[in-house]
Amino acid sequence: MTYFSTVSNVRYEGKNSTNPFAFKFYNAEEVIGDKTMEDHLRFGVAYWHTFTEDLTDPFGVGTAIRPWNHLKGLDLAKARVEAAFEFFEKLSVPYFCFHDVDIAPEGENLKESNKNQDVIVAMMKDYMKDSKTKLLWNTVNNFSHPRFVHGAASSNHADVFAYAAAKVKKGLEIGKELGAENYVFWGGREGYETLLNTDMKLELDNLGRFFHLAVAYAKEIGFDAQFLIEPKPKEPTSHQYDFDVASGYAFLQHYGLEKDFKFNIEANHATLAGHTFEHELHYARIHGMLGSVDANQGHPLLGWDTDEFPTDIYATTLAMYEILKNGGLGRGGLNFDAKVRRGSFAAEDLVEAHIAGMDSFAVGLKVAQKLLDDGVLEAVVEDRYQSYSTGIGKQIVDETVSLQELEQHAYTLDTIQQTSGKLERIKAIINQYVLTMYADQ
Amino acid sequence: MTYFSTVSNVRYEGKNSTNPFAFKFYNAEEVIGDKTMEDHLRFGVAYWHTFTEDLTDPFGVGTAIRPWNHLKGLDLAKARVEAAFEFFEKLSVPYFCFHDVDIAPEGENLKESNKNQDVIVAMMKDYMKDSKTKLLWNTVNNFSHPRFVHGAASSNHADVFAYAAAKVKKGLEIGKELGAENYVFWGGREGYETLLNTDMKLELDNLGRFFHLAVAYAKEIGFDAQFLIEPKPKEPTSHQYDFDVASGYAFLQHYGLEKDFKFNIEANHATLAGHTFEHELHYARIHGMLGSVDANQGHPLLGWDTDEFPTDIYATTLAMYEILKNGGLGRGGLNFDAKVRRGSFAAEDLVEAHIAGMDSFAVGLKVAQKLLDDGVLEAVVEDRYQSYSTGIGKQIVDETVSLQELEQHAYTLDTIQQTSGKLERIKAIINQYVLTMYADQ
Amino acid sequence: MTYFSTVSNVRYEGKNSTNPFAFKFYNAEEVIGDKTMEDHLRFGVAYWHTFTEDLTDPFGVGTAIRPWNHLKGLDLAKARVEAAFEFFEKLSVPYFCFHDVDIAPEGENLKESNKNQDVIVAMMKDYMKDSKTKLLWNTVNNFSHPRFVHGAASSNHADVFAYAAAKVKKGLEIGKELGAENYVFWGGREGYETLLNTDMKLELDNLGRFFHLAVAYAKEIGFDAQFLIEPKPKEPTSHQYDFDVASGYAFLQHYGLEKDFKFNIEANHATLAGHTFEHELHYARIHGMLGSVDANQGHPLLGWDTDEFPTDIYATTLAMYEILKNGGLGRGGLNFDAKVRRGSFAAEDLVEAHIAGMDSFAVGLKVAQKLLDDGVLEAVVEDRYQSYSTGIGKQIVDETVSLQELEQHAYTLDTIQQTSGKLERIKAIINQYVLTMYADQ
Amino acid sequence: MTYFSTVSNVRYEGKNSTNPFAFKFYNAEEVIGDKTMEDHLRFGVAYWHTFTEDLTDPFGVGTAIRPWNHLKGLDLAKARVEAAFEFFEKLSVPYFCFHDVDIAPEGENLKESNKNQDVIVAMMKDYMKDSKTKLLWNTVNNFSHPRFVHGAASSNHADVFAYAAAKVKKGLEIGKELGAENYVFWGGREGYETLLNTDMKLELDNLGRFFHLAVAYAKEIGFDAQFLIEPKPKEPTSHQYDFDVASGYAFLQHYGLEKDFKFNIEANHATLAGHTFEHELHYARIHGMLGSVDANQGHPLLGWDTDEFPTDIYATTLAMYEILKNGGLGRGGLNFDAKVRRGSFAAEDLVEAHIAGMDSFAVGLKVAQKLLDDGVLEAVVEDRYQSYSTGIGKQIVDETVSLQELEQHAYTLDTIQQTSGKLERIKAIINQYVLTMYADQ
Ligand SMILES: [Co+2]
Ligand SMILES: [Co+2]
Ligand SMILES: [Co+2]
Ligand SMILES: [Co+2]
Ligand SMILES: [Co+2]
Ligand SMILES: [Co+2]
Ligand SMILES: [Co+2]
Ligand SMILES: [Co+2]
Repeated sequence: MTYFSTVSNVRYEGKNSTNPFAFKFYNAEEVIGDKTMEDHLRFGVAYWHTFTEDLTDPFGVGTAIRPWNHLKGLDLAKARVEAAFEFFEKLSVPYFCFHDVDIAPEGENLKESNKNQDVIVAMMKDYMKDSKTKLLWNTVNNFSHPRFVHGAASSNHADVFAYAAAKVKKGLEIGKELGAENYVFWGGREGYETLLNTDMKLELDNLGRFFHLAVAYAKEIGFDAQFLIEPKPKEPTSHQYDFDVASGYAFLQHYGLEKDFKFNIEANHATLAGHTFEHELHYARIHGMLGSVDANQGHPLLGWDTDEFPTDIYATTLAMYEILKNGGLGRGGLNFDAKVRRGSFAAEDLVEAHIAGMDSFAVGLKVAQKLLDDGVLEAVVEDRYQSYSTGIGKQIVDETVSLQELEQHAYTLDTIQQTSGKLERIKAIINQYVLTMYADQ
Repeated sequence: MTYFSTVSNVRYEGKNSTNPFAFKFYNAEEVIGDKTMEDHLRFGVAYWHTFTEDLTDPFGVGTAIRPWNHLKGLDLAKARVEAAFEFFEKLSVPYFCFHDVDIAPEGENLKESNKNQDVIVAMMKDYMKDSKTKLLWNTVNNFSHPRFVHGAASSNHADVFAYAAAKVKKGLEIGKELGAENYVFWGGREGYETLLNTDMKLELDNLGRFFHLAVAYAKEIGFDAQFLIEPKPKEPTSHQYDFDVASGYAFLQHYGLEKDFKFNIEANHATLAGHTFEHELHYARIHGMLGSVDANQGHPLLGWDTDEFPTDIYATTLAMYEILKNGGLGRGGLNFDAKVRRGSFAAEDLVEAHIAGMDSFAVGLKVAQKLLDDGVLEAVVEDRYQSYSTGIGKQIVDETVSLQELEQHAYTLDTIQQTSGKLERIKAIINQYVLTMYADQ
Repeated sequence: MTYFSTVSNVRYEGKNSTNPFAFKFYNAEEVIGDKTMEDHLRFGVAYWHTFTEDLTDPFGVGTAIRPWNHLKGLDLAKARVEAAFEFFEKLSVPYFCFHDVDIAPEGENLKESNKNQDVIVAMMKDYMKDSKTKLLWNTVNNFSHPRFVHGAASSNHADVFAYAAAKVKKGLEIGKELGAENYVFWGGREGYETLLNTDMKLELDNLGRFFHLAVAYAKEIGFDAQFLIEPKPKEPTSHQYDFDVASGYAFLQHYGLEKDFKFNIEANHATLAGHTFEHELHYARIHGMLGSVDANQGHPLLGWDTDEFPTDIYATTLAMYEILKNGGLGRGGLNFDAKVRRGSFAAEDLVEAHIAGMDSFAVGLKVAQKLLDDGVLEAVVEDRYQSYSTGIGKQIVDETVSLQELEQHAYTLDTIQQTSGKLERIKAIINQYVLTMYADQ
Repeated sequence: MTYFSTVSNVRYEGKNSTNPFAFKFYNAEEVIGDKTMEDHLRFGVAYWHTFTEDLTDPFGVGTAIRPWNHLKGLDLAKARVEAAFEFFEKLSVPYFCFHDVDIAPEGENLKESNKNQDVIVAMMKDYMKDSKTKLLWNTVNNFSHPRFVHGAASSNHADVFAYAAAKVKKGLEIGKELGAENYVFWGGREGYETLLNTDMKLELDNLGRFFHLAVAYAKEIGFDAQFLIEPKPKEPTSHQYDFDVASGYAFLQHYGLEKDFKFNIEANHATLAGHTFEHELHYARIHGMLGSVDANQGHPLLGWDTDEFPTDIYATTLAMYEILKNGGLGRGGLNFDAKVRRGSFAAEDLVEAHIAGMDSFAVGLKVAQKLLDDGVLEAVVEDRYQSYSTGIGKQIVDETVSLQELEQHAYTLDTIQQTSGKLERIKAIINQYVLTMYADQ
């Protein structure tokens, strides 16, 4: 059977196409710099938002109209696998991602849940033989079930820690089985509702122990995926321990885990933490910690995780700029951790939303590559920091100068000639790059 | 003498120009729809940010390097007039705007201040004879001086009310003298630091009285400018009475002033109030209250009024869409209530920043006009609301149906077929319009 | 059967009690000023948060352990009624509030839903005969069902308007049947996700028509409840039309409804709109529009409606100060639109949370009354604004002065002596009042 | 001469005093737990806000009426020293804090600035002989002067780095000279306006180098103060590198500085970063990094650093709770980095504001000590986490369990009995502690 029967395979038709089910900018085979668009962008579909999500919100029940809505249990799970691989093929995306509970129903107990997982994992493995779509990463949902009400690895209850650990063990095994390139930890309930009843030190120590256990087990079974932490500042808890990349990096260093992990950076989580998306990517990049990306966007006036499909060309351009500067995403990818709006409840909206996101990142990639090719921002930076390449500046960078010598130098500086930061010019140039990107084609 | 000697008259050189002192998109004479770009956009330069501002911030002193920095008092004021008209001419902007204190120094007392105003106003009038640049609006600064520490029209002190009123009287006379098309009220200190020591009812009543006095005096002297209120939610006070357009409209209706005022809408004030720029424009438009625009933008992650030059093409497009739907701005204009960043302290940055802003709105205008020409959003809206043009929907709109009849109709509705809001598709289309706008030129 | 068997009737045991199931500060019979605490505070229990809510959040399923969890359909609805009246009695609260869908399950169609309502309403009416607890207000939920995905009265679909209207009709009839003192409209989906597909003018016009229809029908059936609008700025929609009290007041005036409605003000909605709770109460009060209160509190660092039980004594004090200045709440009350945290899932937590809220408002009432008795803030205000009682100030207030006369007065003002606003002193005094409130008992 | 002639020495008069110039709660000699209030609280006066600040804001000039306003240059600086020590004595505060530019005017060049510093430092040293008031910490202002427009240690210009370093060198010497217990670094401009022109890696590396130079020099001259970093997320830059404690800790670990620094935590900076004050204190405490505190508070609805005097008893209680759990502040203190409101411009307001702050922390100390004495929160925590003291929990903490063993344990867990987090009860108890604190005295 087919689930998206009204949609054919989505093809690149170019910038003037009015076909809603065509790419206008994403041309998988087009070579940008040294690689094809597909190889640069490494798009992934998020199983939860696309196949499991029913578009409930805190004030309303689900609205999603899906061809599998009438099914239940493992039948439903199987239909979703079929739909997923049809969807992957129609969009020709190279990757997908999932949580354990997205793909199969939880059973009465852990054993039963794991058995359900096994059924679906086997089915997926089978589908993957005939599909180009691979597993970018998997993870386990240690936050939705009531047992995780007070946290998972950072729960106040040792049994919950054990249960969460067992789920991660299974997740690692599944990741290995399906050849996942990464394994993600998002600390859904690893945080607190209130400090008043919380032993944060024990919780953080336990979180560190939990990660060490996972690292050890992955080595033991020969699962060589890149481990990733996905920061988020708040929601569902009032404070999540992996607040942002910097605080995650503080944690990893403190517990001796910084070699074993990189970050999976979500745009909407960045802005909720008070950072731009590009800030989080940049910070991770210069610390060698940029692993993968959850490609979405938030609503700048709303205070929660809206997980919108990314359509802001400024954001995709600056994100791709960071990714290109990073030499690409390595084993990571651009996973659409994004959901259609509650009012976009038709099955076709899933396709259109992915097209919107893929086109937006394709544009961002092209603009970023052109900015790099022309050395636009590099020239600005080289010019601004040139004083560090000679004289006292070089001594500072080489660490061959003392405070006393710096003072002596300062005594000679009656005035210091500063130069304008020229932000307005730079922004105008970026607009020009965006607006002329498709002018000559 | 010349003040911007490194900059020649700024000309339109087209989208591929690399001349920082040329327009890439703003082509004043280009006809868009029924009017030239110049007539659509009616750009204004804000005297305060461009000629008075020294780029102080709460943690640092001014950085602006200006050719008039060595002058003082009326000499400084006169040099600024010369510089201003040179600047207007080089950018060929049709309008400018000012507060009383921007153009001339305050004296020891009101009489002296007014005398200083007279000197500069006469000089300006003289300059305006040979200039295309007219006065979009003027206003008075009733917020910076310590006498206004607790408000102006809403001060706790009647003498301050009187002083503020006298300043407005002078402002209205100057507006008339210089042929201002509008007169603006921004309630800089009309609000409160705390409710705990505030008689809000008296303050609002007095604010209403103050506006009635101003309206009456303008009529008396035959000054027929459009009166405008500029809302802002907070800063400098904790709560400003004209929080947003809706609360300003509540105030105007309550005090019987809604026929005498429209709104001057600033983008950054909109976002500080929790609204999009286009929301405030739209709300004002459909209530017949859209007067003029302070064209700038805020930083979505910062909680204060950053007054950045507008460069976000999405924002300028949606703003121009509202303005076109409004049939234009009438006597209003797009005043750049925007300042260069503290690090953009060179005099040339002023020119480049205005070019960035003017180009961005020119692009917005063209995209908006094309969206309108193609009826893109109109088609969406017409389709979505068609149920109100016949049957029960028409009865609702015609107000010919009762609650009982609606109930009878509802009993027949076993299911109601909703259609997707298609937000993702619409956003993709807007991207396509932006990205292909300059493709065929 | 009993549902809260571990909890006896909650009694006042005084400030040193360590009994979690006793009031420490709320002493219903204690006379404060001219009335008992019970008559001042008019507490209401929110049916939805206390009897229907399962503590789901966007990242996790429900955790609430409730003695009625095993039931379904009308059986569940009936058990909740029994539990509710047991709960009301144990807390001895004078009021409760509900939405239609809280009390009875929706049927296959409107007729069936209404029939279910009738069953439960009859049962409630029966219970109310033997109970002191009355209906503060009822309302209908026109936002959770998928049919309301694009709004109710402001839907793009006339059938939805009709359906919503039919539900309100039934709500008004039920309000009359149960003797509700108020009828509330919270515009759950009356707003927009995006302006891009929205006809805001038609939507607002229809909202106005909807309210007129409801007013007319209530008169027709002789239901003399006070109509209330409950503002909320965002969530679930990106922009809710009743953003705050001021914008609601603008709407009511524009559509000629300001005599027919007052406001139901929720603390958490106030802060989400960028206002303090007391601001919204104060604004409503001085415009004669303060109707009722949804007593809860938000988390100042979270960007969504957390609906916490109110425990902040500063907030309850300033709220009660406004309410006392208003001469009380009239037919309104303090409805706990508040939910226990997801981690507070025990049935006993419901009781403890209400005790926490009732005690907090009891303290607020006492402190506010003492502040009023001592004229603390009145003295500050009288002193600060005294200039308006004589001379030029009196002329301003009496509207017997012209702008010219004010200018003449201003010419005489070489300096204006301002006095300190003394906010730090005032805050210290409020602390002193709070901290000594229970010193002498 | 005397500067605060209307104010006598401020004494403790107890909770019912109506003398605005008396302490109602701060009783320096009162022993709380093991120490006097004075020794617990270690209050410091911030020189800048109290003696240098003129209450300018971005929309208005200074309003502060100060007895030294008529003076200039070194005369002004000397008068401020006299006023300061009079102020310290009248409040009997044990500490004060300053930036270099607060105490003496900047000269034409570094040499002259340093000479001015020397004059005032000598004068201060002299005054300190007869005063109980010591230097809690000093720092240098490397952010206000235009030379620091693009940063100091993280400037793009090596000369600026040198200049900033020379200022720190002088600051360390002055700290030693005056016996400062700590030395603070607040990175006023260490951040960026935009990533687009920024080499963040070089800037961070340089910041690390800068701190290493300072540490080395302090050792060299035998200045054994505790070094402190003061985090702040944004303002004046769009992103400050020391965003919060966690990101500061990431930085310190990355550059091998975590043994040389602790944190100076400001309440208002915590909330701007999206954290509660107690969160930042707690995080620092459990990492052994809690150094000192900037005692103030922000306005929860405003998006900038309002630096209000701390009056919120909840905040002071939870802060003192963290400090008591930390075994006190060690060499740190509670520095009032707080300014009177612009409307509180009288010199007496400075005294009243400090009284308000000192009283509020005195109350917080007493409530926190009582909570600790009664083990209120300790009991909650011990109970909640008991599962980690035996069995599988103990094995987790002892790190003697593998993922496989945890899985085996999880297989035995058909259900996990969770217990309520009881947040509502805990909040009610804290209210009870606050409200009864002064009941029995
Ligand atoms: Co994500
Ligand atoms: Co997200
Ligand atoms: Co403006
Ligand atoms: Co502004
Ligand atoms: Co409510
Ligand atoms: Co709410
Ligand atoms: Co500070
Ligand atoms: Co601060």
